[in-house]
Amino acid sequence: MTELASLGATSVHHVGLAVHDLDAALQHYVDVLGGRIELRRAVAAFGVDAACVELAATGALVELLAPLDDESGVAKFLARRGEGLHHVCYAVGDIEASLDACRARGLRLIDERPRTGLHGSPVAFVHPAGMHGVLTELVQP
Amino acid sequence: MTELASLGATSVHHVGLAVHDLDAALQHYVDVLGGRIELRRAVAAFGVDAACVELAATGALVELLAPLDDESGVAKFLARRGEGLHHVCYAVGDIEASLDACRARGLRLIDERPRTGLHGSPVAFVHPAGMHGVLTELVQP
Repeated sequence: MTELASLGATSVHHVGLAVHDLDAALQHYVDVLGGRIELRRAVAAFGVDAACVELAATGALVELLAPLDDESGVAKFLARRGEGLHHVCYAVGDIEASLDACRARGLRLIDERPRTGLHGSPVAFVHPAGMHGVLTELVQP
Repeated sequence: MTELASLGATSVHHVGLAVHDLDAALQHYVDVLGGRIELRRAVAAFGVDAACVELAATGALVELLAPLDDESGVAKFLARRGEGLHHVCYAVGDIEASLDACRARGLRLIDERPRTGLHGSPVAFVHPAGMHGVLTELVQP
């Protein structure tokens, strides 16, 4: 029996939240959690306006996502479920190897090839169907 | 104008996933992510059978929760939404001060007083209504 490689997740890079109003949500999360805005920009390829709140001790990120248009996946999520937890992102050392591991395990990929994510690093999404309902992002920071 | 204190979140302690079958989900997440089982036990007070997968580099945890009975909040979540992201937990330095900060901000608390959580540390849940739809746990590790 061949042992399948894992994806090699080394940490939770961020949790992603879908929100209606990015300005309001960002202000709320910065104020309530006590973090700082690490980044804010629109990513047209993903159809989102995005911002990350960085927590003090560890650099853990809370990513807030508002849709840029009605066709965005985040817009569909909001229409179906309302605001809330959207995805979790794991840091990996080698995203191509992680995607190969996903394929070997029969996990359904949303991105067969890495795309450039919010932070300019390669990212890829794994479909929730094979991850117990969790939309899962991989990033090679 | 009085400036309100933040909750003082220092890191993402864990993300919590609601699952139907804890054994199957735990095996899957350990195999796929490449982590180790950090803890597994039932917590009757929360109505859950729980396990945590620890990721290599940082000790970030993925917490899997299956309901112990139909009255558990996790059972209701599963019935309503199916498997998926259930909550996010932030580490704080002083959970009583964090709960005071929540009250001062008018955030609705599920736990007015800390309870003992999965790891034996004080935890408290903040209602999703004031957190853009995200069930939010605080832990003082």
